[in-house]
Amino acid sequence: MTKSKLVEEIIKKQSYLCVGLDSDCEKLPNGFSKDAKGVLDFNKAIIDATAAHCVGYKINTAFYESMGVKGWQAMEETLAHIPSAHFTIADAKRGDIGNTSAHYAKTFFEVLPFDAITVAPYMGKDSLDAFLAYTNKFTIVLGLTSNEGSQNFQQQKLSSGEFLYESVLKQVATWGTPEQIMFVVGATKAQELENIRSIIPHHFLLVPGVGAQGGSLADVTKYGKNESVGLLVNASRAIIFASTEKDFAEKASLAAKAYAAEMKGLL
Amino acid sequence: MTKSKLVEEIIKKQSYLCVGLDSDCEKLPNGFSKDAKGVLDFNKAIIDATAAHCVGYKINTAFYESMGVKGWQAMEETLAHIPSAHFTIADAKRGDIGNTSAHYAKTFFEVLPFDAITVAPYMGKDSLDAFLAYTNKFTIVLGLTSNEGSQNFQQQKLSSGEFLYESVLKQVATWGTPEQIMFVVGATKAQELENIRSIIPHHFLLVPGVGAQGGSLADVTKYGKNESVGLLVNASRAIIFASTEKDFAEKASLAAKAYAAEMKGLL
Repeated sequence: MTKSKLVEEIIKKQSYLCVGLDSDCEKLPNGFSKDAKGVLDFNKAIIDATAAHCVGYKINTAFYESMGVKGWQAMEETLAHIPSAHFTIADAKRGDIGNTSAHYAKTFFEVLPFDAITVAPYMGKDSLDAFLAYTNKFTIVLGLTSNEGSQNFQQQKLSSGEFLYESVLKQVATWGTPEQIMFVVGATKAQELENIRSIIPHHFLLVPGVGAQGGSLADVTKYGKNESVGLLVNASRAIIFASTEKDFAEKASLAAKAYAAEMKGLL
Repeated sequence: MTKSKLVEEIIKKQSYLCVGLDSDCEKLPNGFSKDAKGVLDFNKAIIDATAAHCVGYKINTAFYESMGVKGWQAMEETLAHIPSAHFTIADAKRGDIGNTSAHYAKTFFEVLPFDAITVAPYMGKDSLDAFLAYTNKFTIVLGLTSNEGSQNFQQQKLSSGEFLYESVLKQVATWGTPEQIMFVVGATKAQELENIRSIIPHHFLLVPGVGAQGGSLADVTKYGKNESVGLLVNASRAIIFASTEKDFAEKASLAAKAYAAEMKGLL
């Protein structure tokens, strides 16, 4: 999906919500088997219940890999169930040297035809080149994450006076266009979004950490929105596990609808 | 496998060679089908041919994931074929926040019973805690890699005067013991190993970049060896693709044997 098509969907739906399919099989509602089949059935129900209110789905690969071969199959079938007008993200945090990265890119752009993948920047430019070679796909680079550990390295000051994450944003932004690069920016850092926007005014930001992880949607939108909205706000558990009873799909739909309604008011 | 058992194997074999199973199905020798079955058959032949000369195997997950579900299965079966006296590494470069990392750790320490996994440090301590909770396994953290892109971030100077990778080594070393943490250090930086050893004297280093990627084994050993050897030197293509003809296994065996012979002289 192109950036302009994504923006079109956001404007049409007045929603920039991404639903995170962090479908931990141990946490499935009553009635689902606690295995890959249960996860797939659950995901299909969640997608059907929320598609009207969101513009994208983010599949957290860890929850599928931990079920082995059958989990990988459930990931494939979940992806196939997502309507084509929705933006799809493999939240895989991959990153390695050239030839290896090329295989990761093939995995998540071809074998599994996602629109985007999340990647870690630690190994530098030539670890991202293979992803960026797919100019019709999005490479979503970790910028500033919302966890406590972001202080260990991302928020260390460089001798230049800038934070490491600022250097990541600046350098990575020169390696491709806003039509193929996005950044992960944690929602608990809403105030810092203003600064981040001055560094990368035109890129889409994938913002996790709204909902179960805390973070204010109003703040994120106020400081993060740009001329083409430029935001994908992800919520996972707050939507998919809104209820663990028989009404889980209904409650997930209501939770997604509530996010979308708030977003409409903020746009 | 414990650190003391690994050291015992190294001393016994007089080899600290790790064979990297970067088994790109497009590059298999003539006679193998270019698919997951071909990769598995090839890997088994390579393992049988090289086991006497190495102490470990490193499976590069990218080359298996890019074959989808069947690739994941080939990875499982390859791991099962590795003799139990060999140290096994999932070269997966994972890293994410707590709950997600816990699922990656489960994947590569339980579902696939590897001895070790490589991880990226960008997200900080709480992204590694779930791996470090397995005190009977090894978490191998990216320190200084051998690719050109290591200059972008790893080799940036912090305001404290140290390089980012030095801060990674220092901080991570306080998060667990040398019995459960190793570091990836690229072999093209052999001179820097002396400095790295002053920061982390007791940890094992996983050193890729010897062989096809360049880097001198003598230099790596001179600057990187510690009181318990403390080195796992990885070679992938230089061994597994030593020949693409019918004699591939024989040539792989000879290549591994040559590394081991050189190592014996250096110990």
